Amino acid sequence: MTRFALNQATTKYWPLPDLAAGCVAAGVTQVGLWREDIQAFGVARSAALMREHGLTVTSLCRSGFFQEDGWFDENRRAIDEAAAVGAPVLLLVSGGLPAGSRDIDGARAHVGEAIGELVPHARQAGVKLAIEALHPMYASDRCVVSTLSQALDLAAPHPAEAVGVALDTYHLWWDDTVWAQIERAGRAGRIACFQVADWVTPLPAGVLLGRGLPGTGCVELRRFREAVDAAGYEGPIEVEVFDEKLWARPGEEILADAMAGVRDHVL
Amino acid sequence: MTRFALNQATTKYWPLPDLAAGCVAAGVTQVGLWREDIQAFGVARSAALMREHGLTVTSLCRSGFFQEDGWFDENRRAIDEAAAVGAPVLLLVSGGLPAGSRDIDGARAHVGEAIGELVPHARQAGVKLAIEALHPMYASDRCVVSTLSQALDLAAPHPAEAVGVALDTYHLWWDDTVWAQIERAGRAGRIACFQVADWVTPLPAGVLLGRGLPGTGCVELRRFREAVDAAGYEGPIEVEVFDEKLWARPGEEILADAMAGVRDHVL
Repeated sequence: MTRFALNQATTKYWPLPDLAAGCVAAGVTQVGLWREDIQAFGVARSAALMREHGLTVTSLCRSGFFQEDGWFDENRRAIDEAAAVGAPVLLLVSGGLPAGSRDIDGARAHVGEAIGELVPHARQAGVKLAIEALHPMYASDRCVVSTLSQALDLAAPHPAEAVGVALDTYHLWWDDTVWAQIERAGRAGRIACFQVADWVTPLPAGVLLGRGLPGTGCVELRRFREAVDAAGYEGPIEVEVFDEKLWARPGEEILADAMAGVRDHVL
Repeated sequence: MTRFALNQATTKYWPLPDLAAGCVAAGVTQVGLWREDIQAFGVARSAALMREHGLTVTSLCRSGFFQEDGWFDENRRAIDEAAAVGAPVLLLVSGGLPAGSRDIDGARAHVGEAIGELVPHARQAGVKLAIEALHPMYASDRCVVSTLSQALDLAAPHPAEAVGVALDTYHLWWDDTVWAQIERAGRAGRIACFQVADWVTPLPAGVLLGRGLPGTGCVELRRFREAVDAAGYEGPIEVEVFDEKLWARPGEEILADAMAGVRDHVL
């Protein structure tokens, strides 16, 4: 369980000081943070809180959204926040198609160019950019990067210490090519983040909030963990679940169930 | 517009006699039918109605669902219905994971075996089985076949005159490998059905009913049509849209808009 990490989104309504104390009480040492939450609490204050509790920040979610005006400055700010809070990895969700556009190839090409423009600042800040493929159901409005293969293609032109990929089981589980792509990611030294969530059937209304804790759905979570391990990944296993019903429960309970889910269904 | 075909699901609440007369009035000669509708109207009666109006049946939707008990007999019945109504093609939606299963590879392998068991009856009946890849968001509960590549892999062991694939733009548009797979499908003589629907953003609640008429969304419909043409496909272009708001309108209006959508955004 030393690899377990709690992503803050899983306990959305747990105030950060309570989350920090709760992690310490549960023996959890690693936390993934979210930009809006650390902005609300204060970035420097969040960093201090993590330090005081001996917590390691595994990742910062998230930036990207390269189809939006001002993406360059916004992503530079996100890189600075990641550095300030001690997150070695910043997750990038590419954004969807520009309004009225049908040019998904063009949108993907733009993502590649945009990441290239961010690399110098990311290297300077010591933050690795992690391109995340989101499930194809988000291709039009949130993320034109839909497969691990595409994420790796986009990362390829850049140095592996600056640009990697984030693997989230919820987004990738349906893809029969993902196992070969995980090997490819490992060979290229690109696996920067590994997040686990389960796919619950049927999808609740509002496809954004349809994830379940490990073990509640149909994803071969252990197979994914074994595949990333075999590919040489030794980093955190981060539980990131969006689910209104889960969020309504006390943070300590969610954390306990997330840990049990990883112990019983991922490790 | 001679290639235009109306899939019955697009005008869900249009009674079949009205649909037949409406197609004739609009100069439409091709119709794709649904099993539950022709069962309700009577299979022989549906066939007679089509004949009397000079309408060609392009396809019958749908069978498959190989994870269910009784799939063998049910699919044989579907093949018989397709033959009875004069549909040269029966669409197969594979079904999802068995309850409680996490074995998606196993489910896909079972689909391949099941189709093999149906091939003799399909050949005897003169009905081509068309494996349809559904969008990955349906992988757990409706269709473990999520990409054209997977559909072609499943079709490959069988003769091309017995087993092909159905291409639906709504399900495939996000996939950057689809263009190469359309070429592959054409080379193998496997394109048995081409259906067009647009992807509307945001997805309405209930992901099953999120399709739009051609031109209302972000899919490169013309690129798809040109790709299937270049792959040697000369068959119908069938409009199949599921949308409660659309269904609430008079059948004649839906048909007119579907025709305009194909004329302006597909041809």
